[in-house]
Amino acid sequence: MKKAEGNESIILGIDPGTIITGYGLIRINNRKPELLAMGIIKLHKFDNPYQKLGLIYKRIESLILEFSPDEVALEAPFYGKNVQSMLKLGRAQGMAMAPAINRGIPVFEYAPRRIKQAITGNGNASKEQIAKLIYNMLKIEGEPESLDATDGIAAALCHYYQENNPTLPKSYGSWKEFIRKNPGRIK
Amino acid sequence: MKKAEGNESIILGIDPGTIITGYGLIRINNRKPELLAMGIIKLHKFDNPYQKLGLIYKRIESLILEFSPDEVALEAPFYGKNVQSMLKLGRAQGMAMAPAINRGIPVFEYAPRRIKQAITGNGNASKEQIAKLIYNMLKIEGEPESLDATDGIAAALCHYYQENNPTLPKSYGSWKEFIRKNPGRIK
Repeated sequence: MKKAEGNESIILGIDPGTIITGYGLIRINNRKPELLAMGIIKLHKFDNPYQKLGLIYKRIESLILEFSPDEVALEAPFYGKNVQSMLKLGRAQGMAMAPAINRGIPVFEYAPRRIKQAITGNGNASKEQIAKLIYNMLKIEGEPESLDATDGIAAALCHYYQENNPTLPKSYGSWKEFIRKNPGRIK
Repeated sequence: MKKAEGNESIILGIDPGTIITGYGLIRINNRKPELLAMGIIKLHKFDNPYQKLGLIYKRIESLILEFSPDEVALEAPFYGKNVQSMLKLGRAQGMAMAPAINRGIPVFEYAPRRIKQAITGNGNASKEQIAKLIYNMLKIEGEPESLDATDGIAAALCHYYQENNPTLPKSYGSWKEFIRKNPGRIK
């Protein structure tokens, strides 16, 4: 994992969706994750699909400019109900990834089940269970307000655990990681 | 249709794909379409999915910076073989649209059948037939080299015909167009 400064590293977790996109930013400080920010991008009030997509890009870009994350982790289902919803989800994922890709920030993706497993030890945990654990773990006060925001944090935490526990199966890697691991394949 | 300068307007047509993305730029000068540029973005040589997506964004962005299109038209299938290929296609479409959306350039989408119908009068025309007609129409010399590039031009021409033939059914509109047509729905 890249280090922002000394022993510190910042991860932006995103749960892209076409109705609500959730996000969470955590800082790893001496192996201890802390919450920097969390929130949601509400898209359902816009009818126009391009405005929705543009809003995802702009908001994620502004988070990147404000917090300078070292890595971006996405919750990304690989299966869905039907081809049309997957096409729309793919567009939303593309818009969420683009500001990171355009700046050379490594992007990682994790399936929802994998994230649940990493956070709770149970791949079938509910969103409420995930939220509760995250609030405890990061010492956030109050009750979880948005399960989409906590899903964003969960993606970031999952990535942190992944990178710090080599026994877990590897995720899709970033381009930099790919080069590092496959030096012979790059001309 | 917006006019770039006097009676002139430039349309960027894109056929986004995860292996090859084709594009074509046409200028409408006194109701006469002329070819400005055409080409393909080859993605199959990269294994890393984020590098592919980043390349689509950067190349489309550079075309927008070079030619300042007034509108962008995409070939966009709404159905596909399986959810995974549609997710990937959605990401590629998102990356192709993003540089336009981020600059407020209106984006329009047309189904492949609709584009074929607009160019040849036959919704089942082959890519070769489309390419041949486009080469004749735009007086391009030689034989078509890439059927992906001509598919990009076809999307741009389809949009031009659409905008200039009000009897055709309307496409997905841009945000600006949506506001114009639905003034009561915007608060």
